[in-house]
Amino acid sequence: MRLSRYFIPTLRDNPKEAEIVSHRYMLRAGMVQQTSAGIYAWLPLGLKVMNKIADIVREEQDAMGANEVLMPTIQSADLWKESGRYDDYGAEMLRIQDRGERDMLFGPTNEEMITDIFRTHVGSYKQLPMNLYHIQWKFRDEIRPRFGVMRGREFLMKDGYSFDLTHEDAVIAYQKIFLSYMRTFARMGIKAIPMRADTGPIGGDLSHEFIILADTGESEVFADKKWMEMDTTAPDLSYDDIDGLSEYFKELTNIYAATDEMHKEENAQGVDIVTARGIEVGHIFNFGTKYSDPMKATVQTNDGKQIPVHMGSYGIGVSRLVGGIIEASHDENGIIWPEEIAPFHVGLMNLRFRDDACTKACDDAYAKLQEAGVEVLYDDRDEGAGSKFKNMDLIGLPWQLAIGPKGLEAGTVEFKNRKTGEKMEVSLESALEKIVD
Amino acid sequence: MRLSRYFIPTLRDNPKEAEIVSHRYMLRAGMVQQTSAGIYAWLPLGLKVMNKIADIVREEQDAMGANEVLMPTIQSADLWKESGRYDDYGAEMLRIQDRGERDMLFGPTNEEMITDIFRTHVGSYKQLPMNLYHIQWKFRDEIRPRFGVMRGREFLMKDGYSFDLTHEDAVIAYQKIFLSYMRTFARMGIKAIPMRADTGPIGGDLSHEFIILADTGESEVFADKKWMEMDTTAPDLSYDDIDGLSEYFKELTNIYAATDEMHKEENAQGVDIVTARGIEVGHIFNFGTKYSDPMKATVQTNDGKQIPVHMGSYGIGVSRLVGGIIEASHDENGIIWPEEIAPFHVGLMNLRFRDDACTKACDDAYAKLQEAGVEVLYDDRDEGAGSKFKNMDLIGLPWQLAIGPKGLEAGTVEFKNRKTGEKMEVSLESALEKIVD
Repeated sequence: MRLSRYFIPTLRDNPKEAEIVSHRYMLRAGMVQQTSAGIYAWLPLGLKVMNKIADIVREEQDAMGANEVLMPTIQSADLWKESGRYDDYGAEMLRIQDRGERDMLFGPTNEEMITDIFRTHVGSYKQLPMNLYHIQWKFRDEIRPRFGVMRGREFLMKDGYSFDLTHEDAVIAYQKIFLSYMRTFARMGIKAIPMRADTGPIGGDLSHEFIILADTGESEVFADKKWMEMDTTAPDLSYDDIDGLSEYFKELTNIYAATDEMHKEENAQGVDIVTARGIEVGHIFNFGTKYSDPMKATVQTNDGKQIPVHMGSYGIGVSRLVGGIIEASHDENGIIWPEEIAPFHVGLMNLRFRDDACTKACDDAYAKLQEAGVEVLYDDRDEGAGSKFKNMDLIGLPWQLAIGPKGLEAGTVEFKNRKTGEKMEVSLESALEKIVD
Repeated sequence: MRLSRYFIPTLRDNPKEAEIVSHRYMLRAGMVQQTSAGIYAWLPLGLKVMNKIADIVREEQDAMGANEVLMPTIQSADLWKESGRYDDYGAEMLRIQDRGERDMLFGPTNEEMITDIFRTHVGSYKQLPMNLYHIQWKFRDEIRPRFGVMRGREFLMKDGYSFDLTHEDAVIAYQKIFLSYMRTFARMGIKAIPMRADTGPIGGDLSHEFIILADTGESEVFADKKWMEMDTTAPDLSYDDIDGLSEYFKELTNIYAATDEMHKEENAQGVDIVTARGIEVGHIFNFGTKYSDPMKATVQTNDGKQIPVHMGSYGIGVSRLVGGIIEASHDENGIIWPEEIAPFHVGLMNLRFRDDACTKACDDAYAKLQEAGVEVLYDDRDEGAGSKFKNMDLIGLPWQLAIGPKGLEAGTVEFKNRKTGEKMEVSLESALEKIVD
């Protein structure tokens, strides 16, 4: 993509309203724009990152055998009255009356609606287990929205729901999700630690939050020091290997990690505890028949009985992750995107726009990178070299490739790794080779 | 995908509430489920088709040089008071008060918000032309939602917006969009006829609707008979070829076609007019400075003056197209998907689940098709052959491949083209060859 044809409205100065680094950098890099308190428009660069995160989430959900659906944002209040949560949810729920004066709401989560879809279509134990998810905008009317997309009011969430015949089967579903979440976050190039968590208004007795550590995290967390050194890449394990799943789950949950609400010193005796700040990026719940009971979502067993289905729900904060990953990966010059979710792989800079030879060399390099299928952002604007370097550091693409008249004479380009800062003067060909690798 | 692991809750009988064929088939094929009046949850099969439609729209927008953004669903009423449309829009607008008693609304369209984004970041003629689009859920509180996803309340729309320095440049932007829309609809395997149209509450003086013909269309349309025989595939024309764009636009708009509101007999004299019913799937507007004037979205010209930017807006009804395409492409047995947007390319049926040799042959064929990168829906359930054939016709995939014990003995499979109905008894290998072609 040529920057001259791309809408990245970067800002030179730090916006006053931004209290934390991810919010600051997202505004400065032209990724988002606030349109109301806690509500954001996603500009091209921000949207590209969010879509890459959503794609990883989707691929890992599909790999686990979950089916993707898409529920609407506007729900009838009737469903929430049936489950008993309509009054419980408080002022965070955005309540709406339509033109027929029916009570509606903007969904903050979808347990009720998915339970209704299930009970409409599924009647037999033979159709279980079932796992449905969607990636859709939610609204929670926070009293004090802040930290940019980290605690916004309208936000993009993946929420998934499992349906099983028995508690034992529901635990297997929970352990599958657990593995898939470890895979999902590792693929994004971040370490998310599963922590025993409170269940809050969703309910149930078994729950974990997936937390990434960052100084600006909203909550205090307590974790065994082992987590800090550990490689959290998940093992090569089939979702059909029930024993393997259970073992992996036990192995990881045996290493102490708890959120503030769940931390008890007596449970952590003899453990080398690290206290840190954390950002919740995922949260999973097993809540049994909390919704299927009042909403009469039953299935027939093989001996003809009708029993309520056992359920769980599983969330990933897709829009929040964009901010969360920046909190965990940046320096004083800007964002440092992990390769897997970087909006582009390489930033190509023309250091002397008005030099025809230089511009021709850049155009050629751009064509070659595109041909090789590399995602490249090409700064082809009539701007000074200094401002281009600054801008590229801010945007945080994994690789930078700068072409100027001096290097061109010597037959070299400047090639930089954004993360390590390592710079090389190499031939264009060897830079291209390294990038395509 | 194995049907045994996929959530397609098909219905045997015609749902009473469905008045038109697309609504009936979408419910019967388990593509959607109504969750409130005019509001639908998209189940896996329906979502897959909608995503394919959205992908084609996106690719053609990007090819034209438009930049994708994503604006939120909830907007502040302040913007609409600024443009003067807040009171005009009437009861179709879903008005909301948040917990701070601020007036908000669920966006029915985004002219105001995009104008606000533009004026925040763009100040110079050098940044023009600019074209931004998003694909996002909208809400219009129809007094009588009906026809399933064709006239729903919550619906998915692509809306794009162009910004130009002069009226002449805005006309070029309009003609680019015109070409891109012809390409977009042709790629979906449908014929959409551009018709001179009324501008309604969006405003402006130049507007076309893109209409597909179907007996169940909501509005009457009048078109030159030439349109019926014409191949509407767009020519191989660069978006940079301004003269070519203008010629193409004139050529097509010179062939008479008008919606009910715009049809005048005196304009169609000597034309062989066909009267038909039509479904609007796209609508484009050039409205000059209607929003930039009151909202003060100005740019500096090269001689230092501040002038309001010239704008246009361009919509495609993404969720509506799912229904519209079914209206235009079906028979008495079910849907007939055009290849480009079919949820799967092939439906593979095991006609004798309890026959091990048959099941093995089906599993092998499934593996081979997947290896070849073919999207295949495999009916591997323990059901009778008759119900499997019926179901596959209803779902409407382009190709059907049925494997039963008799054919297996003879070394053949049954291979059917859903559209033509043509059946062949051929070897599995030659069927696979035909499919992969």
